[in-house]
Amino acid sequence: MNITIFNEYHPNEHTGKAEKNYPGGIHIALKSIFESEEYDVVTATQEQACNGLTDEILDNTDVLLWWSKNWDNELLNSVADKVVSRIREGMGAVFLHSAKNSKPFLRLTGTTSATAPVSWKEPGESERLFVVSPAHPIAEGIPSGYVIPNEEPYCEYFDIPKPDDIVFLGGFGNGMCIRAGVTFTRGAGKIFFFQPGHDSFPVYNDKVIRRIILNAVNWAKPVAKPAPIAEETKPEQTGFKARVKKLFK
Amino acid sequence: MNITIFNEYHPNEHTGKAEKNYPGGIHIALKSIFESEEYDVVTATQEQACNGLTDEILDNTDVLLWWSKNWDNELLNSVADKVVSRIREGMGAVFLHSAKNSKPFLRLTGTTSATAPVSWKEPGESERLFVVSPAHPIAEGIPSGYVIPNEEPYCEYFDIPKPDDIVFLGGFGNGMCIRAGVTFTRGAGKIFFFQPGHDSFPVYNDKVIRRIILNAVNWAKPVAKPAPIAEETKPEQTGFKARVKKLFK
Amino acid sequence: MNITIFNEYHPNEHTGKAEKNYPGGIHIALKSIFESEEYDVVTATQEQACNGLTDEILDNTDVLLWWSKNWDNELLNSVADKVVSRIREGMGAVFLHSAKNSKPFLRLTGTTSATAPVSWKEPGESERLFVVSPAHPIAEGIPSGYVIPNEEPYCEYFDIPKPDDIVFLGGFGNGMCIRAGVTFTRGAGKIFFFQPGHDSFPVYNDKVIRRIILNAVNWAKPVAKPAPIAEETKPEQTGFKARVKKLFK
Amino acid sequence: MNITIFNEYHPNEHTGKAEKNYPGGIHIALKSIFESEEYDVVTATQEQACNGLTDEILDNTDVLLWWSKNWDNELLNSVADKVVSRIREGMGAVFLHSAKNSKPFLRLTGTTSATAPVSWKEPGESERLFVVSPAHPIAEGIPSGYVIPNEEPYCEYFDIPKPDDIVFLGGFGNGMCIRAGVTFTRGAGKIFFFQPGHDSFPVYNDKVIRRIILNAVNWAKPVAKPAPIAEETKPEQTGFKARVKKLFK
Repeated sequence: MNITIFNEYHPNEHTGKAEKNYPGGIHIALKSIFESEEYDVVTATQEQACNGLTDEILDNTDVLLWWSKNWDNELLNSVADKVVSRIREGMGAVFLHSAKNSKPFLRLTGTTSATAPVSWKEPGESERLFVVSPAHPIAEGIPSGYVIPNEEPYCEYFDIPKPDDIVFLGGFGNGMCIRAGVTFTRGAGKIFFFQPGHDSFPVYNDKVIRRIILNAVNWAKPVAKPAPIAEETKPEQTGFKARVKKLFK
Repeated sequence: MNITIFNEYHPNEHTGKAEKNYPGGIHIALKSIFESEEYDVVTATQEQACNGLTDEILDNTDVLLWWSKNWDNELLNSVADKVVSRIREGMGAVFLHSAKNSKPFLRLTGTTSATAPVSWKEPGESERLFVVSPAHPIAEGIPSGYVIPNEEPYCEYFDIPKPDDIVFLGGFGNGMCIRAGVTFTRGAGKIFFFQPGHDSFPVYNDKVIRRIILNAVNWAKPVAKPAPIAEETKPEQTGFKARVKKLFK
Repeated sequence: MNITIFNEYHPNEHTGKAEKNYPGGIHIALKSIFESEEYDVVTATQEQACNGLTDEILDNTDVLLWWSKNWDNELLNSVADKVVSRIREGMGAVFLHSAKNSKPFLRLTGTTSATAPVSWKEPGESERLFVVSPAHPIAEGIPSGYVIPNEEPYCEYFDIPKPDDIVFLGGFGNGMCIRAGVTFTRGAGKIFFFQPGHDSFPVYNDKVIRRIILNAVNWAKPVAKPAPIAEETKPEQTGFKARVKKLFK
Repeated sequence: MNITIFNEYHPNEHTGKAEKNYPGGIHIALKSIFESEEYDVVTATQEQACNGLTDEILDNTDVLLWWSKNWDNELLNSVADKVVSRIREGMGAVFLHSAKNSKPFLRLTGTTSATAPVSWKEPGESERLFVVSPAHPIAEGIPSGYVIPNEEPYCEYFDIPKPDDIVFLGGFGNGMCIRAGVTFTRGAGKIFFFQPGHDSFPVYNDKVIRRIILNAVNWAKPVAKPAPIAEETKPEQTGFKARVKKLFK
């Protein structure tokens, strides 16, 4: 499976807590989830030509992971359009954390992705992840009620379309909660949004979170295209003559 | 609109906190929500003949409210069956709190209604109710993030089928959360489950909660049955002769 | 309720069958559905200034009906953007027939609205409308299996997101079928798409179809905004000090 | 993967067209779908002890296929109960054709499974299967619009809960159509209902139909159970003292 990991890799990520948690960038941490031989992984960052997402790369991508935060508005529209149409054609997509505000996600959902304003301070809040779709492949092996010690709290109302599936709810202290892991489909493409992942906390180094992302990528891989319909099963003509012909042949 | 309020009215409810919160029973408090002239309300309790739900009463019910907790196993099977089939035929139903474990609810959902075990003590936890379907009629006029000061915490995984709509999420302290207001349809019948309402807290006297229940009952009222299909639009015969006849008439 | 009916009113509609079916335009036929005093209706056509959809009109619209076909690409982007954001804020919307390809619908769904290619000739195919959500307000009073004598056949795969509700399926001769009446929500706005309505057939003069459109508009009207949350129920501060303060006050 | 195929194998199936299409019974034809080494298949028929579904067999079943028609009422209640609870615990289930009326399916859905009455004669109607969820694993490799030459027509309204996913719509001549391939989840169990399969037509010998059933079984296999939650991530005590303790530790 060919995986492409897009990370904006804004200068903020080159220093401070983000750099300490994720030396070399979040994309490097995410890449290390897919060490098995069955995965072929490339990374892309926003300062690269074509935001790192050339036609060649997108054409060879089965599933795209996306982390972004500060540079969403600066993403090339042509790149956003291509990502959107590749997803509709079957490319899987996993949007992480603030990537809910990325151009491709917004164009696919038709909503604002806004969440309720929440005041918080470092070191954040602990978040408990509850499995609400235990039959879903993304929940495979994931204990319900798992605690992320420190995370940025996100709170409803979260302005997204009604998801196909809510795989996880996330509950924070003080009663705040959010649909934290949700799926959508657009055309032949499967989409997963996963809320945890503020860059000041080493969430993507947590083995349960890594398992969720691995599950999501496996779930999101495209299904094989159907073989063309054989001549004898093609839609028949629908006009009057064709019917009569059929009736009396 | 004809509303029937079923409350088991177990002896536990005749004394202590429950009695203090709801003199005369929870059904009396719920009844007072529907004081407008457009509603005609009757109440039923489990110790009455036929558990208070005779054919005559059910035949005249547009929406049924249900609160139960201790006597779920003792409900007459014949009553449970009738309630289930009336709902399928269009009667609306609002199941409150522990009524998730009532026979009609379990038979309609096909699940166990189990929730995760939670340890709690009086005076309970404060619960914050978040609106996750702001376009839904049950959310009309309800502020997102409303706080119920004291409630029994319910926690996911809540074993119900995927709801048609999740109108409210409920978040408690310590990160616990639950799909707190959910809808289902079975046949022509609309069903709303609403989690708040432990009898030791005066939740049903809260004006926001009362508005939610009022909204839910209005939403759940049956839609008018269609007029019979006129002769000329009835499904045609599908056999060979009928088709030829049609083609050449 | 304030209703705005948008019809592109392309020159094709001024002559031929379209003009015979709908003298003065499809918007005039649609307007006549809402003759009761409770409705206040204005119409808009694409050649008017701002495509007829000025801020003043949109600000006074509870539900917007939309019919378009030939001029979708020429709709002003600024108008499309405004329609999209008004819908997210609660304005209801009913998109009819080829309006599946209009800019607002495409931006709200994030899909292509493509349908399978179908060859057909005048006088079209008869379509049978089946109610698959009998509890839905849009199906109120509508017989399942109702026959539209002549319509343009639409066929799956219809590239839309998974609808919130499928109210109607439409089945044509020769086995073609389509999700013919589907609902979505975006933010606080309710959206209904209804497939029948090719302009060479007088479908919007059919009383059952008119009832469906009336039901849809009533269903789509905005729910009342919630009152602001009172001070005492506002989200509390979540920092360490606030908690301690609360615990010991 | 361990697959169990239940077929009532009523005497009607031992003779006539059914026997000609499926020598030895429908279960034998279905079994031949799973010839690859990765599948371990056992069959069960209703006249066997415990209807062929002993605890030992059910405990070793990952996915259960079910075909039944004439003997639904005679299924042992104890067997129906066990099947229902195994599915809730994660066993996958594929219900075929008239198995919509089987006790396990009815108990899991809470509905009647009724369909609209349809008059038809041998050799049935041709059915066209449309893929409406192209991203779904059950649709993998399946062309949209595939024609089954002869089948018993089923028609909406089909009284089932709103499915999680509608994978296929089926359209017949004369405008009849049905949600022909639908999924549900109950607890940890995935359920697929597939409408084609009247025993007078050799539908289960068709290679596209066989691919659909193979896909469905692969999709329905249970996800791995989560590892137990480690001590440090267990839900914390929620009482007052525990909080203070936590705050000041």
